[in-house]
Amino acid sequence: MPVNYTPPTPEALLPVSGAELGTAPAGIKKWTRDDIVLVALADGACAAGVFTRNRFCAAPVVVCREHLARGGSVRALLINAGNANAGTGASGLADARSTCAAVAQVLGCRPDEVLPFSTGVIMEPLPVDKIVAALPRACATLSPHGWHAAVRGIMTTDTVPKAASRRIDIDGVSVTVTGMAKGAGMIAPNMATMLGFVVTDAPLAGPLLHELVAELADASFNRITIDGDTSTNDSFVLVATGKAPLPPIASTGDARYPAVRAALEAVAQELAQAIVRDGEGATKFIAITVAGGRTADECNLVARSIANSPLVKTAFFASDPNLGRIVCAIGNAAIADLDPALVSFWLDDTLVVADGGRAASYREEDGQRALAKAEIAVRVALGRGSATTTVWTCDLSHEYVSINADYRS
Amino acid sequence: MPVNYTPPTPEALLPVSGAELGTAPAGIKKWTRDDIVLVALADGACAAGVFTRNRFCAAPVVVCREHLARGGSVRALLINAGNANAGTGASGLADARSTCAAVAQVLGCRPDEVLPFSTGVIMEPLPVDKIVAALPRACATLSPHGWHAAVRGIMTTDTVPKAASRRIDIDGVSVTVTGMAKGAGMIAPNMATMLGFVVTDAPLAGPLLHELVAELADASFNRITIDGDTSTNDSFVLVATGKAPLPPIASTGDARYPAVRAALEAVAQELAQAIVRDGEGATKFIAITVAGGRTADECNLVARSIANSPLVKTAFFASDPNLGRIVCAIGNAAIADLDPALVSFWLDDTLVVADGGRAASYREEDGQRALAKAEIAVRVALGRGSATTTVWTCDLSHEYVSINADYRS
Repeated sequence: MPVNYTPPTPEALLPVSGAELGTAPAGIKKWTRDDIVLVALADGACAAGVFTRNRFCAAPVVVCREHLARGGSVRALLINAGNANAGTGASGLADARSTCAAVAQVLGCRPDEVLPFSTGVIMEPLPVDKIVAALPRACATLSPHGWHAAVRGIMTTDTVPKAASRRIDIDGVSVTVTGMAKGAGMIAPNMATMLGFVVTDAPLAGPLLHELVAELADASFNRITIDGDTSTNDSFVLVATGKAPLPPIASTGDARYPAVRAALEAVAQELAQAIVRDGEGATKFIAITVAGGRTADECNLVARSIANSPLVKTAFFASDPNLGRIVCAIGNAAIADLDPALVSFWLDDTLVVADGGRAASYREEDGQRALAKAEIAVRVALGRGSATTTVWTCDLSHEYVSINADYRS
Repeated sequence: MPVNYTPPTPEALLPVSGAELGTAPAGIKKWTRDDIVLVALADGACAAGVFTRNRFCAAPVVVCREHLARGGSVRALLINAGNANAGTGASGLADARSTCAAVAQVLGCRPDEVLPFSTGVIMEPLPVDKIVAALPRACATLSPHGWHAAVRGIMTTDTVPKAASRRIDIDGVSVTVTGMAKGAGMIAPNMATMLGFVVTDAPLAGPLLHELVAELADASFNRITIDGDTSTNDSFVLVATGKAPLPPIASTGDARYPAVRAALEAVAQELAQAIVRDGEGATKFIAITVAGGRTADECNLVARSIANSPLVKTAFFASDPNLGRIVCAIGNAAIADLDPALVSFWLDDTLVVADGGRAASYREEDGQRALAKAEIAVRVALGRGSATTTVWTCDLSHEYVSINADYRS
């Protein structure tokens, strides 16, 4: 059960002009559900992406980077669940290319206009034949209203589909943003999340899109961590079909840009937070804000040291204000000259640590009350500067161990 | 239940001339067991220590560093369980000094000849009065045969006491090494372990002892990780009472040095591995060897990325050869120019990955067989150089979550 997250109804997912989605059951694992998703894009669509920094990055990530580096048009995304096509060496790369060629044949475009994405078990050969055999069915179901089926098709250990839409008005023209994401474990994106896709019909120019995708990732998917394990397959792709009848938006100085960016960021953040709320075994949603750092990077080190500490996470799970574990995690962040005597932290509005020690005003009951809630804010002040950052995470429960002790079976 | 570890019998812990140990119940937590340990050292004993690199290091660590930096003699160690005296600010520091003064009064030495150590809950005030009140009883029980009681006195979530002895012959003189350690969670020593003490009567000179303590820590406690959380209190202290009737050993060139060093290293490694075998919730003992790195540091990064991955650890717990998670963990180590195509790894003697992909010879049954065992060897070859390192770790089980979800209660 996700923490305070209700998946959108089919009607809440707004179609985006220029994007159609189809799904089919390829039988990649022993299941009967749809497990491949085809996104067909109208001629003229632009795409930009950011990908995992894991050195063992998956074959589809390698192919996506190649196809995007070309700088040409993008006509389709092909996504499969159940198999990551990672740790598969040269044959995995050939497999990813084969699926692009098959999509190109079905849709009548070039293979390098197709971006492939995979999520699932690592180090298993991709069943290319099954995927190719299912493509006609995926093609037959293509529809602008296919978002709800698509977001279900990309799930693995996710317990709910995660998607979001926004519609804004630009000069009297309706502009739509719809996005979907998946991911529940092996989540500590280091560029982008497991799989995140945001599509808009806003006429954003290609170069601007490339700038924007990195900014959006930093404000959303790069701020979450579930278990500190950066996946081999993290991919976040932003698509602008340009089908809204508006003149192109080519620079950040364009008066229409802030509203479009805000809508995109809202969708990206909602998806990123939804991933944490549906984190494997999650029972709590925790926002960790670290302020008073010299740089945002050092704030991030502290926030992640807290967010990834198994001892902090199990204390949150137990609603046990064993808050010395947060002190320990702050001290473990790689800031060589951190002065503990300047550090304070709060749980919601309760001051827990002041001047590097337990605050005189702190009462265990207050800590207990804050930890009993499903949403918890941790605020740390480092007393070194004016930079700040926020990271979203969840707790570590028995359910996380159960899920990951028998994920493949 | 620890993994393949039987704690030593009282008789197996050899007394070391010049060191006496006493214990007492101070009632630091709601328990009736002995929870303070006093180690009294004969005049002329030398000590050297290495301590946590956590920036929120505990008050006793600060005091130990001060007292050792003085370079004078060390007459006593005072250890308490149940309270870490960390995250306690200026009052914690005053408390640690008070306990040293109390020991000095009881034993008739100077306060700066006493080294204090604490382990337990972080951010609770140290009950100095209770500790001081229990000192006469600890003093009355001082005995060279007190090791067995002492090692029980320093336990927290440890399920078994951890200690080891070696006796060697140097020029017809018997030289003894006995050590004890504790620790079961918050274990990823970054200088030394939670608490580790090794005492010998070998006449090692002070400067050599300082060199040796860091080397021994690197070969033992610095090679283990249970949950990746470096404690605020990690301390490893090496004491040479010098009471063996031999001329001083002052340099590494001394012909007698290699035998003494080997005995010390054997005890330190046995203690370090015992900590992992008794890791919180551990059901498997895993030795991860990374070879073919350019430097030992980069081998260490890869070994720790595997050892600290919750996904790898849960797969080990489940005996599930979901070995793609090891591939993912290797890729997450911070080696920017790692070439996955050169990477191989073995589980015991089974080649799993060759040339960056699944080995053609790999059969799931072989992986299953290796993982079903209680002791598992993972060997990774990076194909970049000739450096190598080994890290010891354990799995992540339901029991780890249970222990840490209600440790304080």
